[in-house]
Formats: sequence, structure tokens, C-alpha cells
Amino acid sequence: MPRLRLALAQSNPIVGDFSGNSAQILAAAHEASNAGADLLAVGEMALSGYPIEDLASRPSFLAESSAAVLTLASRLEAEGLGEMVVVVGHPAGPFEPRLLEVSNAPTAIAQNCASVIHRGRVVARYAKHHLPNYSVFDEYRVFIPGDELLVLRIKEVDVALLVCEDLWRDGGPVGRVLAADAGVLVVINASPYVRDKDEVRLPLVHRRAVETDTIVAYVNIVGGQDDLVFDGDSVVVDGRGNVLARAPQFVEHLLIVDVDAAEATDTALPPSVNRVTIATTMAANGPAEVDIAILPDDREQLWNALVLGMRDYVRKNGFASVILGVSGGIDSAVCAAIAADAIGAERVWGVSMPSRYSSEHSRSDADVLAANIGFHYSIEPIAGLVSPIEDQLALTGTSAENVQARIRGIILMGLSNLNGHLVLTTGNKTELSVGYSTIYGDSAGGFAPLKDVPKLLVWELARWRNSYATDRGQTPPIPENSISKPPSAELRPDQTDEDTLPPYEILDAILDAYVTRALGRDDVIALGFTEETVDFVTGLVDRSEWKRRQGAIGPKISGMAFGRDRRLPITYRPTSPQ
Amino acid sequence: MPRLRLALAQSNPIVGDFSGNSAQILAAAHEASNAGADLLAVGEMALSGYPIEDLASRPSFLAESSAAVLTLASRLEAEGLGEMVVVVGHPAGPFEPRLLEVSNAPTAIAQNCASVIHRGRVVARYAKHHLPNYSVFDEYRVFIPGDELLVLRIKEVDVALLVCEDLWRDGGPVGRVLAADAGVLVVINASPYVRDKDEVRLPLVHRRAVETDTIVAYVNIVGGQDDLVFDGDSVVVDGRGNVLARAPQFVEHLLIVDVDAAEATDTALPPSVNRVTIATTMAANGPAEVDIAILPDDREQLWNALVLGMRDYVRKNGFASVILGVSGGIDSAVCAAIAADAIGAERVWGVSMPSRYSSEHSRSDADVLAANIGFHYSIEPIAGLVSPIEDQLALTGTSAENVQARIRGIILMGLSNLNGHLVLTTGNKTELSVGYSTIYGDSAGGFAPLKDVPKLLVWELARWRNSYATDRGQTPPIPENSISKPPSAELRPDQTDEDTLPPYEILDAILDAYVTRALGRDDVIALGFTEETVDFVTGLVDRSEWKRRQGAIGPKISGMAFGRDRRLPITYRPTSPQ
Repeated sequence: MPRLRLALAQSNPIVGDFSGNSAQILAAAHEASNAGADLLAVGEMALSGYPIEDLASRPSFLAESSAAVLTLASRLEAEGLGEMVVVVGHPAGPFEPRLLEVSNAPTAIAQNCASVIHRGRVVARYAKHHLPNYSVFDEYRVFIPGDELLVLRIKEVDVALLVCEDLWRDGGPVGRVLAADAGVLVVINASPYVRDKDEVRLPLVHRRAVETDTIVAYVNIVGGQDDLVFDGDSVVVDGRGNVLARAPQFVEHLLIVDVDAAEATDTALPPSVNRVTIATTMAANGPAEVDIAILPDDREQLWNALVLGMRDYVRKNGFASVILGVSGGIDSAVCAAIAADAIGAERVWGVSMPSRYSSEHSRSDADVLAANIGFHYSIEPIAGLVSPIEDQLALTGTSAENVQARIRGIILMGLSNLNGHLVLTTGNKTELSVGYSTIYGDSAGGFAPLKDVPKLLVWELARWRNSYATDRGQTPPIPENSISKPPSAELRPDQTDEDTLPPYEILDAILDAYVTRALGRDDVIALGFTEETVDFVTGLVDRSEWKRRQGAIGPKISGMAFGRDRRLPITYRPTSPQ
Repeated sequence: MPRLRLALAQSNPIVGDFSGNSAQILAAAHEASNAGADLLAVGEMALSGYPIEDLASRPSFLAESSAAVLTLASRLEAEGLGEMVVVVGHPAGPFEPRLLEVSNAPTAIAQNCASVIHRGRVVARYAKHHLPNYSVFDEYRVFIPGDELLVLRIKEVDVALLVCEDLWRDGGPVGRVLAADAGVLVVINASPYVRDKDEVRLPLVHRRAVETDTIVAYVNIVGGQDDLVFDGDSVVVDGRGNVLARAPQFVEHLLIVDVDAAEATDTALPPSVNRVTIATTMAANGPAEVDIAILPDDREQLWNALVLGMRDYVRKNGFASVILGVSGGIDSAVCAAIAADAIGAERVWGVSMPSRYSSEHSRSDADVLAANIGFHYSIEPIAGLVSPIEDQLALTGTSAENVQARIRGIILMGLSNLNGHLVLTTGNKTELSVGYSTIYGDSAGGFAPLKDVPKLLVWELARWRNSYATDRGQTPPIPENSISKPPSAELRPDQTDEDTLPPYEILDAILDAYVTRALGRDDVIALGFTEETVDFVTGLVDRSEWKRRQGAIGPKISGMAFGRDRRLPITYRPTSPQ
């Protein structure tokens, strides 16, 4: 059996930064070529970043992408890397628009491509067939589907290429891989993390390897891009289902692996398959080392996702630092810990903003948090700022409570405007679901680390992070009291969340069903909750859609996050609960 | 030639309100039946409201829709309206999901249907073929396409049915209408207003009528639904291109028209066409009156769109009143005038919030506006609320200026929380484009009437509204001084917008090219602007995406509005301007 050395580069692109993204690919190419790899593959759209959304319909963006592919090819050749076959993902176009021109709306003029570079030239190109248009994905909106499978013949091995979604769907190009008798199947991906995704993705790769009788080399990008966190987790699985190599999650990595693949045959090709022979003289020097990462447990994966999501939002948008309000409660404590893990405590500013209703423990728990983590810490009492407003407007009840939250928002935004900090808003998914926050108050901020993390999971993460520290002889960051005390917004005396909401065990279970699993009202009740509670909770969810539309973005970690993942009208008046 | 009497009902549905929407259809059916109509058609999704977005993937919503169709059919029969053929638009399902279950994401399980009701039963159903998935539309995300044309034989006339986008695309069902030899083509629509759309839509209907040699009866819904305003403008055009009937824009209306159509023949049907014969004994009593509305000029259409958009947002979301800050400037003056036209001045609250930098004319122009329009008016000086914050935080420059805007936001939100007003945010499209607003300050609010109206057009509308009043012997609402004075945010002494921005004539032209027409940077420069100005402006646009994501919704009136119409990443770092 012929042997190929494959290199899979988990790079971390920034949307639009063709120069920086190319530099990452070139660096990986140097390393791969030094290791004698025959073929280097990078992730889907690794050259442009992903998702590019409606930039795919901007001709100048596509022109820059095309130029970047050619420049990359030239530089690979100029830097002595031309002999290695390089597969790079990028948008290509403009092509003839797919849609009728009925408006100025962007029409699909681009394809989502994998270009194959050898000896300074693009020698072949594959266009993604299956364009995901569900969940956070709008690819059918902006791309034209391809219709031909590409097979590269390299050193007597037939290597088929697919892009991401193509692997997930039966039929289409994946159906032609077996008929084309390929020995290796390279799949380039931009597949975001969600909890337990490794329990779906690896079995899929495994199944496709067995079904198509190929060695599947699956390469994914890594990094945060707005609300998505790509986890890498690139993997190579052979036709008997053995994992030959696996890259670690959430970090840039070059995975190198030797594969012994079936020798190419000259059987007739099925229709819609293009075969291109590439003569390469790369020579490996001795066998590659085995590189199989072990994934950590689910909570550590989740923590790492939240950390990378924040780190990349901060870095890619050019912020030097972040600021957040620390109330002594669990949400802001966990946000501060994530921030410190993401960018270092020295770049984190925490502000305690006690009101006349703040308990003594709020203040002292925030003090302990600041001491544990070591972020910059200041205290800005708000009573003297709130009273003049309450008095002038004669506000009472909720309208007065909201002023406290909004003054805190003004303080954080003021310090942000003065010092350039990114403001973190610390609300969790449970709060956002039921509208339990003050718009322009505690919801003010550019990034919401816990946007997709329900309250019970916030507690679980806090406990996990503390024991992670304890296990390593470090100071647990989150004060025990912030974890154990009953949660309260402290906007009036002796308030607790459960005064007006069901217990979190029930609330989170209903929200998981209604929001995350998108069940209808009757199906939620069938899980064993009372009609009254379900209608109360789902009513809160429906009525707070307008607030969520104005919320900050934050990392998606569930199968259904707020934002472009869940698209529902604000104006919605069900005759009966739905 | 056989004669048919058609009734087209421009109803104004609310998403999810099957009961209220059915009541509107029943009322139209009574009127149509009294007039002896053979066939009544209502708009696309008139039973459920449109767009329903991901509600299309909720089984309980679809179950309610199916039940509502059956209930409507029974009630039509029970109320003596069973003899008339009724075509009603609604979502149907659940069907087998179209997409692979790779996540909890909503998959397409519904079809966008037109059901045909006769004598208390659904006798036929058509499913939309072409699912728009561009601009604000996500139909490919949530619907399964149909694949069969439906032809109804009524009184020896073959009546073909289409849904909205089906009419716009060559090929597919519209291509089969001529081959099926239909005499009438009924198209049910949910087609939102954008400026000059009548210059595209009517010619399309005209062209299709001639191409297919049918009488095209085009019925559209009316009303505001979140960011969309449906304008009605239902029309009937014969095969020679004559307009036989046209409904007025922006109001509910029942259009009744007699059409003399070609007699049905028994030529063989082309493939993928289903023909259903319906025996109806409706009898018209004398000829229908000619009903051809004349559209007003573009500015009046636009004004009406903005008025209806606000009125329906207020009404459908259950607000009793609105509140807005009135600065004496042009934007808030135009918003107040729209609000008064939409819901009456007695339901509008205007608040002047002068700071120490506010000019004397700001205050007096706001006073004049309040007197002209007659809304509830109060004055809340902010100096005493701003100073304590500036002092405590030692804010200066922009960070201090923003506090003024944010205190105003707190005041409006506080009064809203106290009294239940909807807060209007008065920023225009130009401001939103370049990020020239204070987030959580003047951008605070639930509805943004001018979100898609550029600054120059705000002035044009103000002048138009004033002369409209003058022509009718009414008081022009907008103070002349608010129109003529140089615009200023008045956040520091002697500030004007043009201190930091290009003149509005240039700025709006660049934004029209870059945002509304979605041209790339080089194409904008090619229009004759300097590189420096274009890069400055497009840079501002790109960097303020994060603010726009947190902005209120407002009515789309252009080919490219902010929101779901223009989907671009926040994290975007172009190597060079794109």
C-alpha cells in the first residue's frame, strides 16, 4: 500500500484578514514541508475566516479572496514549499448570480471552495455542494452549490475532497466517494463547538470512513468569531474506524500523520467526478510520531470554549482590556474568572457598585473575588447618582429599581469610553430567556460570556473551576459564598430571584425544553410541568424577545442559542399559548 | 367568455393570532359573498401572519394553523358563505423534515400553502415552490418547497394559483401556467413595501399576465410586522396588460372585480399540474363597480409606510402610548409627527431634556413642535443628574458627552417603566450607519421610526409633511427652524455634525452606495468620491456594526435596511478596505 504523509493545520483565521490568515497558513506549510508532508490541508474558509455572511456577496471581497489564493500559491513556491500539495478553503467568485435580481439584496454570487495548490499554481478546485441553511448558518443565502466531486491522484493514492456539510448529508458527493474508489477523503471544515458535539462529530467521521472505505482526514478551524467558537478537534480515522490521529481542542495545532491507503485503480469514474493527477516528489524522513489528543471532560471543554470565545473577541476586535461589574453574585464571579483565564487578570477591571440595598455580603464577596483573581478593583457607590433621578422623576417600584441597574451601566460604559475597555455583561441564559434583566442597565455591554449558559450550569461551572484550581494547588477563584447563597438582583430589600420565578431546577428544565430543544407548549407540559408554570415561563420568554434583540453577542455553546440561531418575531400575539 | 367575480381581501394579520386573523377573513367573506363573488382570495399566510420565521418549525404552531383552516372552513359554511370559493394562505405541516438532524436547529417541516375552501371543506391545496432566502427572507430555512401547480376549474374558467415568489421566478410553476391554458392566475402575496417597489411589482404582474395570457389577480397583505410594512396595493391585470382593479395602499380593503376569462379547454395537462373542478352556484347581481386606486406620490407613500409601521407596532404589541425625547432637532420632530399621525397626538408624550450645552433655540424649537402637534409635553433638565456622575468618575471628552445622552435614555426609560409608554428612538439611517449615536443613550428605545431613513430624506419628508399640511389649511407640524438650522448633537458647545463628518450630501451618497446598494469600496470610489473620504466613511460603518446589532427595530423602506436584511460580522478585520 502506498503511504502518504498528511498534515492538517488547525489555524485561527479572522474574517477579512487575508494577509494574516495567509501568514498562518504559510507558517503551517513551512512546518509541514519540513516534516515531509505530501499534502497539507487547512480548514474551510481558513483564508477568509468563517462565516463571512453577506461579505460573500461583495465583489471586492471576492476579488481580494481570489488574489489571496494566487499570492499564497506564489509565496509557497517562492519559499521552497511548492512541491507539497496544499488544500486551502476560501470563497470564490463572482459568478453569475443564482437569484433573480428583485431587490438590492445580496444574491449568491460566490462558491465555498477548496483550492488545490501545487508548484505555485492552483491545479484544481472543489466547490461545496451542501449549503447549510439552518441554525446559525445562512449558506444557501450567499453561496452557489457545486456539483462535481474532485479526486486528486497523489503518489498512486486517490484523495477525494469535501467541504464540511458535504460529509453530513447522505447522497451528493459523499455518495460518489465509494464509487470513485478513493483511498483518502480529506474534509475541510468550519464546524463550531456546541456541548457534546464530539459525541456526534467523531461517530459521523467514523461512519463515513467505514461506509466509503477510505481514510477520512477531517480538519477544522479553531477560534472565536462573534458568537461562534470553533474547537478544532481535527481527526484522522481509517476505513476500519481506528483513530489514527487527533488534534487538541481550542488551540492552533498542526497534526501530522502517515496513512497507508489503497492504491489507485483505473476503474471508470462515475459521472460528476473530476480526477486530477498531481506529481509530487515529497519525501518523508522516517515515520511520523503518533499524535492522538485525549479530550478533557465536558465541563473543561465548555470552560475552554467560553475562554477562547472571549479571548478571540477581545483580540480580534483590538481591545486591550475588559471591564465588568462585580456584584458578589455567581454570574459576575464566573465572568471574571473566564476573563482572567482568557486574557490575564492584569487586563481585567472589576467594579463593585453597591447601592443602598446591597447586602454586606455582596460587597465582601466581591472583595474576596477580586483578591482571589487579582484583577484591578474599584468601588463606585451608586446611591448618590440614583437618588437625584428617582427624585426628579418621582420613580417608584420597578421603574426606580431599573435606575440602579442603568446607573451601573452608565458607570461601566463611562469607564469604557474613558479607557477603551470592552464592557462584559454578565447575564446568563436563564435571565435572558425570561427577560430578567434591565435593558440598558445590567444588559449593557459588548460581549456576554454567559449568554448561552443557563443558571444551573453557571453554578456547575463555578464548582468545576474551583476544584480544577484546588486539584492544582491554586487558589479557587470563585468565593464559596457566591456559589452557596440564594441568588438575588438586590434591587430592593431582601429580594431573591425565587420571589418571582420558579425554582431554578424547574425553570431551567422548562427553558431547556422550550428554548433549547424548541418544543411547543403542549410538549413541554407533557414532560411533567404544570400548565400554569409552563404558560407563565413561556409567556415571559415570548414577551422579552424585544430585549434579546438588543442584547450583546456571546458564545453559542448549546444546540439553540439566542441570536441568529433562534429567529422569532417580536410582534407575536398567540391566540392561545403555542 | 365566462365571467367570474373575484374578491381580493387585503387583510392585516398579526403573527400567531389565528383567531383574530380568521375573524378578518370571515368579515371579508361576508362582504364578498354579499357582493356575489365566486372566489375570495386573501394574502399569503393571512391566517397566521407573516413572516412567522422559526415558528414554522414548531409543531404546536403548525397544529394550530391546521386547526384554524378547518375551523375557518366550518364557520364559512355555518355562516352561509360555503358556496363561495375561498383561497387562504397559511403554513401547513408537520411533514417529514427536509434536513438531516445534525442539531436541535429548527429544520424545515412546513410548507407555505394556499388552501382552497368550498362548502365547508378544504378541496385543494397548493404549496409555494420558490422560497425566497435573500434580503429579509429566510424561507428556504423553514419551508419545504412544493412541486405541483394547482388549477381550479370554476364556472368553466381554469384558475391557476401561485404564492408570491413563484410569480417572480422564470421556470417552475409560472412556466406551467401557459401550458395548462389557465384563464385566471391568482397570486397570494406577503410582499413588503420598499421605496419604488410599485415600479417593479406592477410591471412584473403586467409582464406575467401578458406572458401567460391570463388575468392575473395579485392580492397582498397589509400592515406592519416588526421591521416590515406590507403595503397591500393588490391589483388585477388582464392578458393585454390593462389594469382592471387596484386597491389602495396601506389600508385594509376588499377589491371586487368582474373578469371575463377564456373558457376552459380539455387539452391534456402538462406534467406536475393538478386540476380540481369546483361546482359553485354563486350569482352576481349586476356588474361590479370599477375600483382602481391611484397611488400618491413617492413621499406620501413613504410617509404612509412609516406611519403604518409605527401604528401597527404599537397596536399589535399592546402599547397605549409612546414617548420620545424632543431635542428641537429635525429627527425627533419628524418622529413626533409620524407618531401623531400614527396614533394621535393624545397618545404621544414628548420630553425636552436640555443640558447645559443646549442652545436657546433647541428648547424653543421643541416648544413650538409641541404646540404645533399638541402632544403631552414636559421638560426635564439633565444638568443636575449628569454632574454627579461626571464628577464621581472624573469623566471628560466623549466619555462625559455620552453621559448626557445616557441620562436622557434613563429618563425616557424611567417614564416608560412608570407609565407603559413605548420609547421611540429617533436616530436616522445615516447616524446608525456611521455609529454617530450613544449606545444606551439616544439609541435607547423599542422602536426606531427613522432607522432606514437617511438624513437628507428626513429633511425631504419634513418639508413634504409641512406642505401637505399647508395645502390642506392645517398647521405644519415641524418648526421651520428645525428644518433649516445646521444639525448638531449639542453634547459640547457650538458642536455641529459637520465638525466630524463629511457634508450630508456626500455622506448620504457614499452610504447609499456602500450600505444600500452594497457596493464594494473600489466601486464606491469609482462613483467619484475621494479614497480618503470613502475609507473614512466605510471604516466608520464597519466599526459600528456592534452598536447596530443592539439597536431597536424600525421599518424597512429601502432595498437594504439594517437588521436581518444586511448580515455582516462584527469581528471583521480587513487587511485593506474592502
